[in-house]
Amino acid sequence: MSGFGFFGGLFEFKGYQQPVLVSSVDGVGTKLKIAGALNKHDTIGIDLVNHCVNDILTCGAAPLFFLDYIAMGKLVPEQVAAIAQGLARACREVGCTLIGGETAEMPGLYGGEDYDLVGFIIGAVEKKGIIKGDAIASGDAIIGLPSSGLHTNGYTLVRRIFGVAQLKKRYPELGRTLGEELLEPHRSYYHQLKPVLPLVKGMAHITGGGLMDNVPRILPQGLTAQFRSQSWTVPPIFQLIQQRGNVDQQEMYHVFNMGNGFMAHVREPVGIKTALVRTSRGRSKFAGIQP
Amino acid sequence: MSGFGFFGGLFEFKGYQQPVLVSSVDGVGTKLKIAGALNKHDTIGIDLVNHCVNDILTCGAAPLFFLDYIAMGKLVPEQVAAIAQGLARACREVGCTLIGGETAEMPGLYGGEDYDLVGFIIGAVEKKGIIKGDAIASGDAIIGLPSSGLHTNGYTLVRRIFGVAQLKKRYPELGRTLGEELLEPHRSYYHQLKPVLPLVKGMAHITGGGLMDNVPRILPQGLTAQFRSQSWTVPPIFQLIQQRGNVDQQEMYHVFNMGNGFMAHVREPVGIKTALVRTSRGRSKFAGIQP
Repeated sequence: MSGFGFFGGLFEFKGYQQPVLVSSVDGVGTKLKIAGALNKHDTIGIDLVNHCVNDILTCGAAPLFFLDYIAMGKLVPEQVAAIAQGLARACREVGCTLIGGETAEMPGLYGGEDYDLVGFIIGAVEKKGIIKGDAIASGDAIIGLPSSGLHTNGYTLVRRIFGVAQLKKRYPELGRTLGEELLEPHRSYYHQLKPVLPLVKGMAHITGGGLMDNVPRILPQGLTAQFRSQSWTVPPIFQLIQQRGNVDQQEMYHVFNMGNGFMAHVREPVGIKTALVRTSRGRSKFAGIQP
Repeated sequence: MSGFGFFGGLFEFKGYQQPVLVSSVDGVGTKLKIAGALNKHDTIGIDLVNHCVNDILTCGAAPLFFLDYIAMGKLVPEQVAAIAQGLARACREVGCTLIGGETAEMPGLYGGEDYDLVGFIIGAVEKKGIIKGDAIASGDAIIGLPSSGLHTNGYTLVRRIFGVAQLKKRYPELGRTLGEELLEPHRSYYHQLKPVLPLVKGMAHITGGGLMDNVPRILPQGLTAQFRSQSWTVPPIFQLIQQRGNVDQQEMYHVFNMGNGFMAHVREPVGIKTALVRTSRGRSKFAGIQP
């Protein structure tokens, strides 16, 4: 709580000619349940911050400041401290001010040591620099940036497939326990993309809806994205989920990032050889997988 | 969700010389439980927005835009629509853009039709116009602005005293049912105070901690606030709570707003005759009640 008596703060805003403020609010979904089951809470804050940073990065915005909301049935100080540690670390890494937050204890609403965690980010972009995707054209390449794992999506399906007991089991193909793999924090793409934003025509943060639903969103009418599935290696965790859960290929690409956490559309050639797919004229906004 | 694929939006920011962005995050606490018990959800959004608007008003900020987060066990579309209706109405009334929000369905975390509701607000104030309370001096008056009821504080205590069964009971002294009284929305003081902000030296939004904890927060070291309890009429709901719950006077003033939802410190005389109390030199930051 600030000296003013509210759960926020003051941020002097300068350095922009025609600023557009970009804001987003999000949670980390049921990845919280994995953190709870393993009683490890020091990375879930990283997930939250990086998720929010990536969200506003999709239109070219740089993060300014962040606020969190933690609500729980019973306040466990060590748990709150661990969550806050993750939030602070991720904010520091992207140069974003952790300006405020509230911790609410509501025993009637949250059971036991359950908690919800919500993040709110404010960033800014010059009006002229907003990346909207409207310049995307047939023949452009889509560069996929590697994810660190599931990031924050698909956890409801994963929990249904594996159950809590499996979390401590070590899987040779993962080189660690399933729980460790699943808690791997969401990556931020801010530092990687910031220097090349002038080359980028459109971006997609691969969250709920996977590759299939997130990439077409910014495509101009009449363009289609085709992912060449052989142009990248799907990480072992996704193969494991697919096999154990007997999940069909289409569903996998609609739920998970499949190894690409963030996609950037660029005009080819830009000297980058990792381009995955070309967009091409199609009937409508649409994405598909081909070998 | 915006076209960019995140739960927020873009806001072109202009019209300020040396802008300071003021942000806050808050929930409405267990007032949610009253809304749930009465299955009336169209005003809780008003509570949330006005609470946030008042919070940032304490330093002189005007609201720019607002985001909400609604999390629930099972998505009940009518319930979400009713909540959103309240949010939209309150935002419209203070000229604040409802720029985004997320609705998350998390059956493992929230039971039945329970939900949590979180609000994030961003406002702005000119750096020179920030009201900090540092000019408050001995002899200043504190003007109390009437609350519309409990606003969003003290509901845990009230629920303990009355229980759910009493909510539908009509109390003659309230002129309506207890539930109707308890759901009365939190007032916003923005329109009332905006024109007179240049006359105001400091403000306090009376939330958790009541009059006793919120007013001293902005007092310069060595000043004390004394509330003359006979200078305003405590509304019947607070008398009812005190009697039924056998709550002592000190606790009442530490939990509830007791009829003053917002306090503004002004130099006397300013042509306003409703001044309640003078601050005076004291040992330290402190507030007390006297007849």
